[in-house]
Order: sequence, then C-alpha cells, then structure tokens
Amino acid sequence: MRATILRAPGDVRIENVPDATIAKPTDALVRITRACICGSDLWPYRGEGRSADGGIPMGHEAIGVVEAVGRDVRRIKKGDFVIMPFAYSDGTCAFCHERLNTSCVHGGFFGIGADAGGAQAEALRVPLADGTLFPVPSPGERALASLLTLSDVMGTGHHAALAARVGRGKKAAVIGDGAVGLCGVIAAKRLGAEQIIILGRHPDRIALAKKFGATDVVSERGEQGIARVRSLTGGDGAHSVLECVGTEQAMLTAISIARPGGAVGRVGVPHYEATPASQPAFYSNLSVGGGPAPVRAYMQELLPDFLEGRIEPGLVFDSVVGLEQVPDGYRAMDKREAIKVMVKP
Amino acid sequence: MRATILRAPGDVRIENVPDATIAKPTDALVRITRACICGSDLWPYRGEGRSADGGIPMGHEAIGVVEAVGRDVRRIKKGDFVIMPFAYSDGTCAFCHERLNTSCVHGGFFGIGADAGGAQAEALRVPLADGTLFPVPSPGERALASLLTLSDVMGTGHHAALAARVGRGKKAAVIGDGAVGLCGVIAAKRLGAEQIIILGRHPDRIALAKKFGATDVVSERGEQGIARVRSLTGGDGAHSVLECVGTEQAMLTAISIARPGGAVGRVGVPHYEATPASQPAFYSNLSVGGGPAPVRAYMQELLPDFLEGRIEPGLVFDSVVGLEQVPDGYRAMDKREAIKVMVKP
Repeated sequence: MRATILRAPGDVRIENVPDATIAKPTDALVRITRACICGSDLWPYRGEGRSADGGIPMGHEAIGVVEAVGRDVRRIKKGDFVIMPFAYSDGTCAFCHERLNTSCVHGGFFGIGADAGGAQAEALRVPLADGTLFPVPSPGERALASLLTLSDVMGTGHHAALAARVGRGKKAAVIGDGAVGLCGVIAAKRLGAEQIIILGRHPDRIALAKKFGATDVVSERGEQGIARVRSLTGGDGAHSVLECVGTEQAMLTAISIARPGGAVGRVGVPHYEATPASQPAFYSNLSVGGGPAPVRAYMQELLPDFLEGRIEPGLVFDSVVGLEQVPDGYRAMDKREAIKVMVKP
Repeated sequence: MRATILRAPGDVRIENVPDATIAKPTDALVRITRACICGSDLWPYRGEGRSADGGIPMGHEAIGVVEAVGRDVRRIKKGDFVIMPFAYSDGTCAFCHERLNTSCVHGGFFGIGADAGGAQAEALRVPLADGTLFPVPSPGERALASLLTLSDVMGTGHHAALAARVGRGKKAAVIGDGAVGLCGVIAAKRLGAEQIIILGRHPDRIALAKKFGATDVVSERGEQGIARVRSLTGGDGAHSVLECVGTEQAMLTAISIARPGGAVGRVGVPHYEATPASQPAFYSNLSVGGGPAPVRAYMQELLPDFLEGRIEPGLVFDSVVGLEQVPDGYRAMDKREAIKVMVKP
C-alpha cells in the first residue's frame, strides 16, 4: 500500500510499504477515508524534536471504515465507520475510566514511528480497537471534515479550554491561530466565555476565528501583545488562557496575560526547556495545566454539537489533497499557505 | 518600641524603633499578643532572596488586640482581638471578592521591608484594617497557638491542598515536614484524602505529621524517594501533591510523584529559576498551581474546625521565646532544632 514516510527534515515521501494487517487479536484494520496533516507534524518536518532516522510513518488523525478485526475485538465490527483518536487506548484501565485515555497503561500514539503506524496512508492497523475507535453512523460528504477534527484538533482545543477552566462569563484568550487555536475558540464559546481574544496574525485564520466566536483580535506579539490583552480585559488579564502553540514565547505570553487566580491550559507540545518558576505564575496564583488531549473521551460530548449544527470545526480545513500530493500539503502548511490540509487517499 | 530587624544575613537584632502609630485613616494599631517565626523568614536570614540592606522589620504572622483605629475604619474596633493575615487587603476589590486577597489591588505584605512593618514586635500598624483583620472572641491561653497558625501556616497548608485538588478518597503526598507541610497534612485529612504520604526526615516532625493524619512516611530523597512514593501508591503516584518547601529539588520531586492527571499545589516561595516544561508535567497532564495563600479568605472556614476540636494546628509550635530572644528562635529554626517558634512580646 501507499503511505507517507518522513525520511529526513523537509523530505516527506509517499512510498510503497507492506500492507497494513491485523497483527494482534485486539487490532482492527481501518481503510482510511480521510486523514490530515497536523501542526505537530511540522515539528519533525522542520527537524525539531523526534528524529526521522529510518523513516517515520506520518499521520495520527483519521476517519475510515473497518475492514477487518482481530478475534478478540467485540465492540467494533467490520464495516463500521469510525473516528480514530490520535492515541490508542484500551478503554478499560484506571486512566481510561478517568477519561485520561492519553495516559492509558497499554496505550500509545500513532504516527511517531513507534509500534503503531501512520494515518496518512491507504490503511492503518489500529491497536486496541475496542477501546480506541469511536463508531458513528456512515456520514455524508460534508460531515467528513468535522468528524475528522474530533480525531485531534477539536478535542485538543476542548482540552485546552477545560485545562484553562473556561466557564460561563469568563474572559478567555487563545494563543495561536492554527487549527487547534481555532478549535480552542469554538470550545471557549461552547463553554460560555463572554470574551474570546485570539492572538494571531494571519487574515484568513483571524476571519475564521471571528466566525467561530472570537470577540477580539490581538496581532501584536511580545510585550505589545501582552499590553493589548491587558487593556482589552480591563487591566487584569484573562481568566483562561489557551496556549495552542508550544513555543517558549507562546508560554511566556500565556502566563503574562493570565489574570491572577486564572488558569493556563497548554496543548501545544512544548518545544522549550522550562517555564519560569516564580513571576508571574507563582505570585499571581496561576494554574498551568494541560497535555496530550484525551480526545477519545471527548467524542461523545462533542459529536452532538456538530450533528445538531451548533459547531462546525471542519471549516479549519482549507485544502484537500490526494495521498500522492501529501508532500505539497506539508509544504503549504509549513509556509502557512494552508491552515490545515485534508488528505483523501 | 522593640522590634525585630534583620540587618544582614544571620544578623537579626531586637532594636528600638519608632512606636507603631496610625498613619492613614484606614489603619489599625495592633498590640501583638503572639507573633512567630516563619520558615520563609529563614530565606533572607540565610542570605537568599530579598536583601537586608537598610534592615528589614521581620515577621508577618500575628494575633493581638486593637489599640486604636483610623477615622475611616468601620468594622474593626478598639479592643477587638484579631488574627492578622500575612498580607493586607482592602476586602472590597474584585480579587478580594473572589477570595484571592493576596492579589488585592491595594494590598501588600508584612515583614518584607515595604510599606507595612514587621510583626515580630511589640505593636504593628495594620493597613486597610477593615479588609485585613479578622476579629475573634478573646481566646484562652491554649487557643492562642492555633489561632496564630490561621495567620499563615494553616491557611497556607489549606491553600496547597486546594491547589493540589485534594478530595475525598484521593491519595495525597506532602513534600516538606516544616510547619506548612504539617498543616498541609491537616488540610489534606480535613478534605478527605484517604492516603497522606509525608516526605520528610525529622523524627519529631514526622511524629507530629502522623498525629495530624499522615498514613505513610517517606524519608528517602531524590530518585529513591520518588520510587518509594510510587510504590506506596500502587505504582501511579499521588493524585495530589502539596509542595511546601520551595526548592528546585522539592518541585522536581513533586511533578515526579504526581499521578497522570493529578495536581501539584505549591506554596513554598520558589527559590529556583524554572520548572521543566515537558516531562513529566506535560505528558502526564499535570496541573501545577498555587502561590501566596489568601489566608484571610480561609479563616472563616478553618476557625470552626479548631473551635470544635477537629484540628489543632497550634501543635506545630514547639518553642516559645520572648521578643528579646527572637534571635535565638531564628537560630533554632535555622538548625532545625525547632519546628516553629512562637514569640511572646
């Protein structure tokens, strides 16, 4: 089958690889209907973080149709249309029961070159299928995009909002206008924030943020951006800050624009060494939380909002490519010519 | 009057200073019945953190009797017996209403050489008396010690427990066997923790921790201590970690012994530069919160527990000195010969 392999920084290829198959009794084999390229795929593509030695099968977001299941799979059936979260999990351990599937004791992540493969491919072996896959009724064409966001970015934006303790009447700030930040805006509005400030500078993304519910835009960075957010929030800062980037500057901005007693929810994979211990986080009694989003746990909650027309996170996709054009998709996202690229194998 | 002045690291003296007086219409003048020496007083005493240039009037914990009030003071009256929190606050700003008095827009701290004086003295000018002081019925001799802990350490331990999200049935770990850590044990038990692990190594303090409700003791440090806590918690770590020290090692231990999805509540004033951004805090979805405790906000809640005999935080005092012996008290605490020293001016 054809699959996306990152050979070296900047060198992503579509290659012939052995067909995905059932390897363990708890596996499912999923034929990919749609996959996509994630902002986090750009880190190794840019040569930061994990190394591409030996080739990394890329992609961790997908929806598709179950083609076969292992003999111990009970809940998931051949023919099911499923959403695949970016992490697999058994669904039965203590952490899964606590809805923290990304800490599953038997779990792991797709598309990082470990045991599980990558989703930017024709098909994928999904470990622990019963705990991992989320079956939904076979969707129409238009629904595909939003269902695909439940695989990662919509659930991740929701996780940022929860970690940032967004609630009714709160002032929220969202750092980052990528797909996760944009979904963070949806999540903040959904949870009742009265003010949603988006920090970003790309006109197309900002337009989408406003459509999703952003009330204010701050395009300045650094000290100027911090001053703008303070001014927009009556001087005190935002109750809830969603850090959806993962750079040191984003994190420093996050703790600088949070209101005393407020919370920072961070979901951008940290590409920095450390956060300041003392000012302002300690003296302002900030809480800093977040991590890899347990998106599997959020699907049940978020799905009705999409099905009933209250949210449409699929709008973050502004480009669709076939599998052979995936390298073009990486280039477009790397140059910020696309917000998020959908892959139609 | 006589007051405690830190002249240089290790050089704390009882000196004649101008009498405390009413300087502003919102002030109260409090005659100190009991003050005490705080673990945080040892930082400048040891030459770390704030400098003693020009002399710092020391002490931020006190109970006493109101001797006079300014013309704008309404709630507090001459003759009131009061508990003084370590920070003053107006009681009326948005942050005070949100019970975060330590972020009061007009507030500040005692005993740091700023506008307000120090409590290890015969008397003290208390700014914003109506918002700051907490009047209680004139207590008997035995009650003094516990009332005095509401000025700082008991409220601070409670704050650590709240920030660490202690709750019924949770496994808690308390780092530090000083007065705050010991009060953290009380707080964790009070909030329903089923397991309370104290990390400390001083036999007298450990004995008191057990009396307060600690179920397990870990005396090892570093990797060994971390392994011990993991083993005691079934391998996963503690839901709630109360970091009551403020050193880098304590913080690193805290995030290393927290269970995925758990919370670290830190109240030890950070004497370290930064905390690691990535592992384990991010990948384990930990929340790290805390800061200067709004002890004023907690007095109403904690007082009945003491008055009705459910808690006795005053047991953390194992030494009493007169004002002239305060330097001996600093030495005893610095050498860990005393847990916490009460001052009887």
